[in-house]
Amino acid sequence: MQLDHATTEQLRQWEAELSSQYEAFRASGLTLDLTRGKPSAEQLDLSNALDGILGGDYAAGEVDTRNYGGLEGIAEARALFASVLDAQPEEVLAAGNSSLTLMHQTALLDLHFGAGSAAGDWPGWAAEARASGGRIKFLAPVPGYDRHFGICEHLGIELLPVPLTDQGPDMDAVEAAVQADPLIKGIWCVPRFSNPTGIVYSADTVARLARLARLAGDHFRVFYDNAYAVHAFSEDAPELASLLDCCRREDTLDSVYLFGSTSKITLAGAGVAFMAASPANLTRLRRHMGFAQIGPDKVNQLRHVRFLRDLDGIHAHMARHAELLRPRFELVLDKLRQNLAGLGEWTEPKGGYFVSFDTRPGLAATVVRMAAEAGVALTPAGATWPHGHDPEDRNIRIAPTVPTLAEIDQAMEVFVTCVKLASVRQALQG
Amino acid sequence: MQLDHATTEQLRQWEAELSSQYEAFRASGLTLDLTRGKPSAEQLDLSNALDGILGGDYAAGEVDTRNYGGLEGIAEARALFASVLDAQPEEVLAAGNSSLTLMHQTALLDLHFGAGSAAGDWPGWAAEARASGGRIKFLAPVPGYDRHFGICEHLGIELLPVPLTDQGPDMDAVEAAVQADPLIKGIWCVPRFSNPTGIVYSADTVARLARLARLAGDHFRVFYDNAYAVHAFSEDAPELASLLDCCRREDTLDSVYLFGSTSKITLAGAGVAFMAASPANLTRLRRHMGFAQIGPDKVNQLRHVRFLRDLDGIHAHMARHAELLRPRFELVLDKLRQNLAGLGEWTEPKGGYFVSFDTRPGLAATVVRMAAEAGVALTPAGATWPHGHDPEDRNIRIAPTVPTLAEIDQAMEVFVTCVKLASVRQALQG
Repeated sequence: MQLDHATTEQLRQWEAELSSQYEAFRASGLTLDLTRGKPSAEQLDLSNALDGILGGDYAAGEVDTRNYGGLEGIAEARALFASVLDAQPEEVLAAGNSSLTLMHQTALLDLHFGAGSAAGDWPGWAAEARASGGRIKFLAPVPGYDRHFGICEHLGIELLPVPLTDQGPDMDAVEAAVQADPLIKGIWCVPRFSNPTGIVYSADTVARLARLARLAGDHFRVFYDNAYAVHAFSEDAPELASLLDCCRREDTLDSVYLFGSTSKITLAGAGVAFMAASPANLTRLRRHMGFAQIGPDKVNQLRHVRFLRDLDGIHAHMARHAELLRPRFELVLDKLRQNLAGLGEWTEPKGGYFVSFDTRPGLAATVVRMAAEAGVALTPAGATWPHGHDPEDRNIRIAPTVPTLAEIDQAMEVFVTCVKLASVRQALQG
Repeated sequence: MQLDHATTEQLRQWEAELSSQYEAFRASGLTLDLTRGKPSAEQLDLSNALDGILGGDYAAGEVDTRNYGGLEGIAEARALFASVLDAQPEEVLAAGNSSLTLMHQTALLDLHFGAGSAAGDWPGWAAEARASGGRIKFLAPVPGYDRHFGICEHLGIELLPVPLTDQGPDMDAVEAAVQADPLIKGIWCVPRFSNPTGIVYSADTVARLARLARLAGDHFRVFYDNAYAVHAFSEDAPELASLLDCCRREDTLDSVYLFGSTSKITLAGAGVAFMAASPANLTRLRRHMGFAQIGPDKVNQLRHVRFLRDLDGIHAHMARHAELLRPRFELVLDKLRQNLAGLGEWTEPKGGYFVSFDTRPGLAATVVRMAAEAGVALTPAGATWPHGHDPEDRNIRIAPTVPTLAEIDQAMEVFVTCVKLASVRQALQG
């Protein structure tokens, strides 16, 4: 469909045909869902052996995992997850079931507590902001992950969008922003298989993120949510350069927090979250976290260690996920390629959980509404932007992991029909 | 030993004998520990069946516990833990492994977030304090639990000690305090088998706590940590009146937060924490918690539901704990009764995890130090008071759950010798 050179008559003919197709979908009573960035039941089944894997042996070395203590997690879990984040075990904190909780805690700590009373005199970002009469801000590469933005919205941190390119955040824009405003204290990053575009940060982007604190000041932090660190489903998926190695070279280890979890490795609700940070940051975090907890669920950590064993074990396990995910993503991309050339732009991810689709400007909300009326739920338009506001109204996040192939086939037929119809109607009005 | 009517000569003789005994202990190289309020390995063994209990069936009704979601916990866990807190299931939030985390989150929410932007206009305690130029304060019944005090210390909330009687907090003092100072916004309570004294709040105390908001204002909260709700080890242990029933009668449901966990029912590090609150408070809490997590570990909640089943199942399980705990507490109390009449005061708990011992004034730190030098670790003197400062230097918390009976026997021999010797030396100096 070559919209831009079509005659009005041709456009009207397409509109009629597509309307008819669309009405047929509406009449067929579909209930399909492409909203949820979560694993399917088949994926979860891959980890069913977790429960019961301990066989009554709850010992992690000398530690009885059943009892209290060990705020930083068991040594075996720290070592395992260090391998995922390309960190040293002593840089890693193994925690509860939610990396989002770790991110919220870390941001809250830096905002309201700073160094705390026991180390130095930094009172935290909020005090810096009060002293200068401004607001704390984070850079939000867009499109991005709504729950990252939600943490900032909850804590009263302003979000400044910066473009996400196919190499990662537009680092020229990032560097210019932090130099222009010292109250920019953080940036949200999903460096491998970015949510939602699926891109992988280039080595140059990673190196520039590691140098960013030089421009942004001592209390700037890169919130590096490596949620999909091992979540490739194509063999030619790009590797990610090691942020911590770059930071070691640049002497900027204090400027980065790395996060991850097994939510999309084992069980989405009952996995283990982890983070890596410099020794100074970890000491500070542990001290503060110690007021709010005695320790994480070490038994579940031990289950994960016994089940996944090591990085090779994780990769072998992820290959089984890939078998389930690859055909789903291929089907989505085939539908887009076959139907929507010229009517939108999309990414072709090699891993992760999403395909990001950009309609022609001004159509995303319309497409999502039309799809909903035809029984296909999509993530709300704008959700990938701070405060849910996509200024060009273009971005739609497609999450194909939960539905079956047959469901994806049907849902994508509806989706492409909605995009075509909305585009044709727009062209007729234009 | 009747110190107060003894001659100096008699005191000197006792001092010599006790010094000799004490030096013998010192020379014997003991390493015993009465510090830890945690279950023994034998107690933890009672719950070993938790891991593997699901047998591959992760479904809680229609909910796949393995996946994301369900911020308030699974319905089955909410119902089970409602029975522990004498609450309605819809008033209960089933959470992660730490009730301390729930308390910290709740206090932080009321301090810095208040009602949030979506409901009403209450900006939180901190804003109230700024407006009036004062500090937020909590009442701390003493002796009490150091981790409660730690939450306030972390959040910058001032702690005002009030006496803990054998009926609960001195409610005359509590009521007078909240009427005198509107910036008193909370009180810490461990209503059954109080940490460390083991007392159970009387029905009158519970009723007066339920009425307290009438005197203390709309934003006052009772932090009611019912950590030992079902932790009786004697059959004649007093029951606790229902705080929520009292609140329903008084229309003060919004003024109380109830907390509990299975840390000392199943596994100390891998249990399930829970809380009960009014619908209005739960809605507010859920909204805020939703920025920091997607949901708790529902798989572990389901394990607990399958393992404990219902309140009868919990009581039957706790009876097995009681078999292990009762002789330990009896041994401690026998040693105190046989040796320390007139040299201190102590409680005789019917449940919980501690015996609280008060030395003669000015001796607690000395006794703890002497015991440590003889190889018996005791909780630091003062730990049961805010900021670790016991103004009369009297209170020592004895935690006998972990050591074996033989170890308790030896440790208590050392303890009573230290108390006697310190008391005799004090009498000689007086």
